[in-house]
This record gives sequence, C-alpha cells and structure tokens, in this order.
Amino acid sequence: MEGSVRVRVRYCECDPMGYVHHSVHPVWMEIARTETLRASGVSYKHMESQGVFLVVAHLSIDYKRPARYDDEALIKCRVTGTGRAKLEHAYELWRNVGEDGVGGELFATARTVLACVGADGRPRPLPDWLTAQRHG
Amino acid sequence: MEGSVRVRVRYCECDPMGYVHHSVHPVWMEIARTETLRASGVSYKHMESQGVFLVVAHLSIDYKRPARYDDEALIKCRVTGTGRAKLEHAYELWRNVGEDGVGGELFATARTVLACVGADGRPRPLPDWLTAQRHG
Amino acid sequence: MEGSVRVRVRYCECDPMGYVHHSVHPVWMEIARTETLRASGVSYKHMESQGVFLVVAHLSIDYKRPARYDDEALIKCRVTGTGRAKLEHAYELWRNVGEDGVGGELFATARTVLACVGADGRPRPLPDWLTAQRHG
Amino acid sequence: MEGSVRVRVRYCECDPMGYVHHSVHPVWMEIARTETLRASGVSYKHMESQGVFLVVAHLSIDYKRPARYDDEALIKCRVTGTGRAKLEHAYELWRNVGEDGVGGELFATARTVLACVGADGRPRPLPDWLTAQRHG
Repeated sequence: MEGSVRVRVRYCECDPMGYVHHSVHPVWMEIARTETLRASGVSYKHMESQGVFLVVAHLSIDYKRPARYDDEALIKCRVTGTGRAKLEHAYELWRNVGEDGVGGELFATARTVLACVGADGRPRPLPDWLTAQRHG
Repeated sequence: MEGSVRVRVRYCECDPMGYVHHSVHPVWMEIARTETLRASGVSYKHMESQGVFLVVAHLSIDYKRPARYDDEALIKCRVTGTGRAKLEHAYELWRNVGEDGVGGELFATARTVLACVGADGRPRPLPDWLTAQRHG
Repeated sequence: MEGSVRVRVRYCECDPMGYVHHSVHPVWMEIARTETLRASGVSYKHMESQGVFLVVAHLSIDYKRPARYDDEALIKCRVTGTGRAKLEHAYELWRNVGEDGVGGELFATARTVLACVGADGRPRPLPDWLTAQRHG
Repeated sequence: MEGSVRVRVRYCECDPMGYVHHSVHPVWMEIARTETLRASGVSYKHMESQGVFLVVAHLSIDYKRPARYDDEALIKCRVTGTGRAKLEHAYELWRNVGEDGVGGELFATARTVLACVGADGRPRPLPDWLTAQRHG
C-alpha cells in the first residue's frame, strides 16, 4: 500500500515569511493517506459509514526546507507497519517534481501512527480486509 | 443581545502579505456570536445537544483595512433581527482597542443570516427561549 | 475571463455537523480566481513579484445547501466587472458534478470585489494587460 | 522559560468526529511558545522586526485523548534545551483544567525543535539576550 497526491500550495496556507505554515503538512499527509486508501479500493468515507475510524495517535515531522505559495507539492505515502489496532505510515513531501516524476526537492519527511476506533471512540481491531490487503 | 470577544491574531492566520487572510474573519465572527449567546446564558454546545443547530445561510463582509499578526482584535456582535427560523447579526471588527474600550481602528464590518435547523438538517423554528429573550 | 477548478473536500474542512465549514468557501473561491487568472496566461505569484497585489475588499456568500467530506466541489468563477483599481467576480459552487460537466448540485453562490494595491498597500490602477484582456 | 496559554476550542477546529483535528495542536503550541516568549519580555513580532526568525525544524505529538468543541484547553510550554542556533520546547496539552489549575485531563504531549534563521532564511545564532536569559 503506497500512493501519492499532488496539491497546489494555497495562499492562505502560507505565513508572513512566505512559507507554508508548519501546521499544513499534517493536512496534506492526511490527503495522501486517504488517496492511498482510495487507490486500494476503499474510501475512508465508506469506512466511517461502516463504523470504522482511524485517529492519529502519533505524528512526527522533520521540516528540511520551506515550501512556498503556488508550489506544486507531491506527497508520497506508504504503509510501514500494521498492528492489531494500529497502522503506521511514512511520508515524503516533495516540491516542484516534474510531471515525469523527475527532479524536485524533498522539503519534509514524516511518520504517523493511526489507531483504529469504533463509533464509540474505543479501540477496535483493524478490519480484516485492510490487514489482509497489506499482507496479501 | 449584544456581545464581544477579543482575539489575538495568530501567525498562521496571516498570509504572505503579512495581513490576516480574509477567510479568518468569519471564524472570529462565529466566536463572537458564540460568546454573545453564552453571555445570555446558553452555550451553543448545549443548544446542539438539544438538537437545535444554527447554520450560516448568508455572509457578507466589507474589509476596510488590514489586520496584522499579533494585533488584538475586538469583535463586536449584535442581533439585528429574528424570523421564525432565522437570526440576523451585524458585526464590527476592531484592532488594537484599549483595555478601556477607547481608540483602535475599525478594520471590517459584516452581517450574517443564520438558519435554524434540526439534527436532520431541515429548517425548524428558533427555540422560544431564544426569541423570547430577544423581544423580552 | 472565466474559469473553474475542482477541489476534493478535506476532512479538516468539515465541522462537527459533518458539513464544510462556512469559512472554507472563500478559500476555494480564491483558488478558482487564481486558476482563472492562470488560464488567461498570468500567475498571481508573478503579479505579486511585479508589485501588484489584489486584496479582497468585499465578500458575500449565499449558502444554499451543505457540502460534505470527500465531495468533489467544482468552483466556477467569472469576472463580472472592472474599475480603475477594482475587479469583480461572481462564483457558483457545485458539488458532485460529473466528469462531463453534467448533473451535480449548486450549493452556494458568491461575489467578491478585489482592490488592486501596490507593495505599500496603497490603491493603484489595475495593470493595463489585465483590463485590456478583459475588454480585448 | 516556561509559560502557558488558555484557548477555547473553535467550532471550525473540530472535525466530523466532533474532535479537534490533529492539525490544530501545532497552532496552539505556537501560541503557547509566543506567550511564553512574551512573558519573558519579548514579542515574537518584535524579534521578526529585528530580522530574527524562528522556524519549526522538528515537530512530534502524542495524541492521548480527544479534545472537543467548546472545551477550554490549557497549553503548557517550557524550553528544554538551546543550541547555537536551536531552541527546544516541550508541551503538555490539558483540557478543562479549573481556574485554580486543578483537575482536567492531559490530552496530548509534544516536542518541537526551532531553528533560528535570518531574513534570508539562512541559519544564524540565537540572539544573546535569548540564550543569556535561558541560562540566567
């Protein structure tokens, strides 16, 4: 399970230094996770309608360089581990990578751990189809 | 029904020009509405728990001057009209008004119309206590 | 000058009601304006590098229906008027319009007036090339 | 150097689960850092006007429990280390702590490393007054 998404940097995502504010990276990472899931055949929206929620339990980001207004960011995401009720992802955030996937600059790397919870907010096992797919 | 709230401008609320982004004003106006309601004895959170929701049906803002990072903004809000299922508010947005309420600069004025809906999203009358209070 | 942009509704753009928060619409409208400008051959980023800034002087939005998480929104934008130092746009915000442009639901309409300012924040005339293009 | 700030959870900061979105925590942490600095006699705004900028180089957050709309969050922040051009902070994020500082629930812990840069974006030493203060 691996995927990526391209996002154009929005004006309001940039701060007075002219850089993307550091609170925006987690938003883009969430989009990349969602699109990675969608590419594997499931929408997160559908998961939620089935009473399965993924909440962020841990987040860490290393900011290497600034990204700027109107840059095109490429957010790469892959599943790096699964537990009974946990899912780990690693991310690479690139700017201005060519259409052919060549060039560009790595501006951040990151990691998240998601916990699987039910509609009641209590931990529950990851759905079989999600882990099966992973190890499939 | 009339109230106000002070908010300190956050770094991430400012754009590369160094000004508060125009999408932030509606957020502050919502806070002012909520605090105006709270001052009248009801929290919006409680209203929602009773199945009464207020959704924004119309919004208009006149931006007169920029507000900047670290400014203290004073958002004044008052109810200007009620209908069977509607509530109208007017706002004044000031920056750097003294503790004594003197001085400062008016940087925007605004107006909203809220519609009252139930948990199903359908229009429903405003609760009696809300309109009673208004005309009380 | 007329254009449009598609945006996927982000999880963090939705509120506890499950609806897109009303402060997000201005962000999408800004993206549509930017892409309309880009389609006409100029990036707003380039304009700023030339010392020409467009700031929002007036904004009004009519919210007709909710939009929800994971919806695909189509934001249509067109220039409806120009003054010496002003630019007016009208917007239609649609959800879940087909790839062929058919179907979908209009969930909001809006209008903005932009003022043209220099790097010093003072009003300045719109660049010739912008108005020429308009009347061209 | 140690400080704290209270913030009321905004409606737009909460997601469809009704929880504060995980991208909001870094925003509150930034406010706590700023207020900690202000309490020590310097505003970050003033620092920037002197050409000294602090950018986030590393961020990590452990989310322990959800925070919800209208909660009052108390964000505690303290400097845990300084380098030639670096500044480390640790944070505790509490909800619904009493006015007397008693009770409440710890909902997240976090850590940041800031890098000191000049107006050109290049690393520069922390100002003397900042490190001097630190080591008393």
